Formats: sequence, C-alpha cells, structure tokens
Amino acid sequence: METNSVEGCHIGRLRWLVAGSQILGLASVIMTGVWLGHYHGGFAWDRTPHQFNVHPLCMVLGMVFLYGDAILVYRTLRNEGKTTLKVLHAVIHLIALVVVIVGIAAVFDLHIAKKVPNLYSLHSWCGLSIIILFCLQWVMGLAFFLFPGVTYSLRTIYYPYHVFFGLALFILSIGTCLTGITEVLLTSIRDTYSKFDPQGILANALGLVLVCFGLLVGYILTRSEWKLPVSSEEEALSLHFKTLTEGGSPSSLRRQ
Amino acid sequence: METNSVEGCHIGRLRWLVAGSQILGLASVIMTGVWLGHYHGGFAWDRTPHQFNVHPLCMVLGMVFLYGDAILVYRTLRNEGKTTLKVLHAVIHLIALVVVIVGIAAVFDLHIAKKVPNLYSLHSWCGLSIIILFCLQWVMGLAFFLFPGVTYSLRTIYYPYHVFFGLALFILSIGTCLTGITEVLLTSIRDTYSKFDPQGILANALGLVLVCFGLLVGYILTRSEWKLPVSSEEEALSLHFKTLTEGGSPSSLRRQ
Repeated sequence: METNSVEGCHIGRLRWLVAGSQILGLASVIMTGVWLGHYHGGFAWDRTPHQFNVHPLCMVLGMVFLYGDAILVYRTLRNEGKTTLKVLHAVIHLIALVVVIVGIAAVFDLHIAKKVPNLYSLHSWCGLSIIILFCLQWVMGLAFFLFPGVTYSLRTIYYPYHVFFGLALFILSIGTCLTGITEVLLTSIRDTYSKFDPQGILANALGLVLVCFGLLVGYILTRSEWKLPVSSEEEALSLHFKTLTEGGSPSSLRRQ
Repeated sequence: METNSVEGCHIGRLRWLVAGSQILGLASVIMTGVWLGHYHGGFAWDRTPHQFNVHPLCMVLGMVFLYGDAILVYRTLRNEGKTTLKVLHAVIHLIALVVVIVGIAAVFDLHIAKKVPNLYSLHSWCGLSIIILFCLQWVMGLAFFLFPGVTYSLRTIYYPYHVFFGLALFILSIGTCLTGITEVLLTSIRDTYSKFDPQGILANALGLVLVCFGLLVGYILTRSEWKLPVSSEEEALSLHFKTLTEGGSPSSLRRQ
C-alpha cells in the first residue's frame, strides 16, 4: 500500500515534469517563429534571406522538440507494449529527420544560389556531424531493435550505446542551436546587440528555453524511478542470457 | 575466474578511455593557448585586448578540463577511500572555481575600463547562470557530503540531484564555450572566416575537441560497470535505510 502510494506520487511528478517539458518545447518553436517572423521578415522558399529563416525553425522543431519527444515516449506512454513504443520512437525520429533535411536544404540551396560558402563555421561542423550521426543512429536503431533477425544478446550489448549516443546527439543539437542563435545575432544586430536590443533579448531567452527543455528531458530520462519495468518475457530472456554468459558463454556473447 | 577476467578487461578499457580524455582535455587547453597566443597577441593583465585572452583560457582550463577531472576522480582512483575521493573532488572543483573567477574578472575588468557593456549576449547569460549554479552546487556538495552533521538518508536523497546537476553544468559549460568561440571568430575574422581562415579552422577544431572531451567524460561517468562498488559499511546503512522506508518510515525520510 505504502509502496503503491510512493509509486503513484512518482508518476504524478513525472506527469508534471513532462507537461513542463512540452510547454518549454512548444515555447521554443513559437519563440523561433516569432523571432524570425517578426524581426527577420518571415518564411519563404524563394532564395531571398527569408528562405534562411526556414533553417532555424526546422532545426528547433526537428532536432530539439520532436527529437526530445521521441525520447520521452519511453517515459510517458507507460501502458503501451514495447513494440508500439519502439515503432512510435522510430516514427517520431523519422518525422524529425525529414523536418531537419528540409531545414538543411533551405540553407544549402540559398548559399549555393547566392554563392555563399558552406560548412566553414563551428556551427556547421557540429551540425553536419550531428545529422550524419543521427542518420546512423536511426538506421542502427532500426536494425538492432525492430529488425526481427537480431538476437536478444546483441540488442543487450548495443542498447546502452544507443541510449548514450541518442541523448548525446540531443544535447549536442541544443549546443549547436546556441551557436546558431549567436551567429544570427552577431551578423544581423551586430551594433545594437550590446544595447539590449529587444530581438537580442528574445533570442537569448530562446537559448535559455532550449537549455531548460534539454535539462528537463535529460532529467526525466535519467531518473531511475521512471524507467519502464522490464516485462516478464524480457526478464526471462535476460536471466537466460545471464546464465549463458556467466556459465561460459559462446564467444559471440562474451562482451556482455 | 571468468568474472574477474571480464572485470579486468572492463578496467583496462576504462584506463584507455581516461587516458584519451586527458589527451583531449590537455589538447583543448593547449589549442586555446595557441589560438589566442598566436592569432590574438598573447596574454596580459593591462586592460588591452590581450587581457581578454585570459578569459577563454581560464574558462577552458577551469570550467572544462579541471571540472571534468574533478568528476573523473570517482572513476579513476578506484582504491582510495570515499572520504579521500570526496575531498579531492571538492579541492579540484575549488581550484577550477578560482581559475574561473580569474577568467571572469579579466573580461569584466576590461569591459568596465573600456566602457563596453556587460551581460548582453547569450554566451554571458549562459555563463553567468553556470557560475552561480556551480557555486551553489559546490556549497551544497560540501554541506551534504563533507559536513559530518548530515544524515545518510539526507545524503541519499540529495545524491542523484548532485550528480545530475554536476554533469549538466559541465555539459552546459562546453556549450557555452562553443558560443564563446563563435563570438570571438565572428568579431575578429568576420570577413575571412568563410574563406577557411587557418584561425577559424583551429578554433572550430578546438570546439570539436571540447565536445569530444565532454562525450568521453560523460561516457565514463554514466557506464554502470565503472561505478565504484558500494562499501560494506554503506551497504549496511543503505539496507537499514531501505528497511526503514519500506516498512513505514518517519516522515522526514519518506521522499526516498
């Protein structure tokens, strides 16, 4: 009874934190839209500077908000089956990837049309590395966790790497957004930024909201009390696997 | 025998990764020194632009390299007593804090002398938040883990927050360094950055080295097989605490 009430209290707190993360995530997308809509003339795909504005909006929406929500499905949807969660996780990541590709295409297409060099800044170096690793991570996730031919032991070996690099790419995306915000402000309001220009304050606040969203998603993901319980089938497999490895495993399983 | 050899293999891998982290950490400090020494005229405390150069060097040394190493003591020094590790952790963090304060003083003193506004950029907003939270984290750590009057149960409640916010501040420091590098490059080599100026390439590479250092420290810290084993005394206390909370705890302990 006591244990149940403590668990209920934990889940109640999780709901509040998830709600908070959604408010921050939505706020970051809206603030990006308002910043670029109000101060930079809005969005278009016409090879004018307005086309550039598509880039930050897509990156914040895809690489931060949707990416974060794809991670959170394993904490928020606690009554769904593992396969449903995996498919949902992969689908939200795929949507994020499509949005991100649109965002990258916007800026590359504009740079090529205007003969502006590409990939010279720290922002672009980080950004490109993240996108390549994100694609790799998505394909590896699909191959290891949704492809039926992969054994449980291989999944168990890869799982902690998938989680670590998934969270690392999410955090690095937010860091790259901060460099992007800095770049835009230092090129567009270079002379008034230091005079606390309202655009500067809005964009700085956007940076802090992105950081807070990342903190909240990271916190929800890493707290042990909100991890999904291992299903009995998986537990049985896990025990079997443990027996195999501890009692002299085949060489292919030894890394565990 | 099999288990011991697997454990030995794990520790061997840990040593290689720690060595790698130290190479990356030292490389980041040296690269910062070379960048500012070679391309920005070196270091001084004379209210010329050379004084500014003290800031990035101190921040990379204090908030990244020393901060990261203070975290790593709990994984590298595996045969020391818990109290020795706690004191070492606190002392390295204190040295980091002193270095960081010198770095902040350098830039504030210069800005005040030159009548340049302070604290308008995203970099400064993030940086100031980190320093305030770092001081708070250090004092809280001292109070909870080194002050003898605090009970084991209170320490157990605070411990996961200390670890989470400690790592979060470390990651955020690296993100803030990336915005700082972007700021310096966009103000000092604005016209040649897009032409792959060697300075730009060096500073971008520094950014990637900082990210890799962060990834490695984060990886070493979060892998479960390298966590220090709980000492028997602590285990006994922990069991006692668990019995207390599960079997109807006093209200002060209920949060656990």
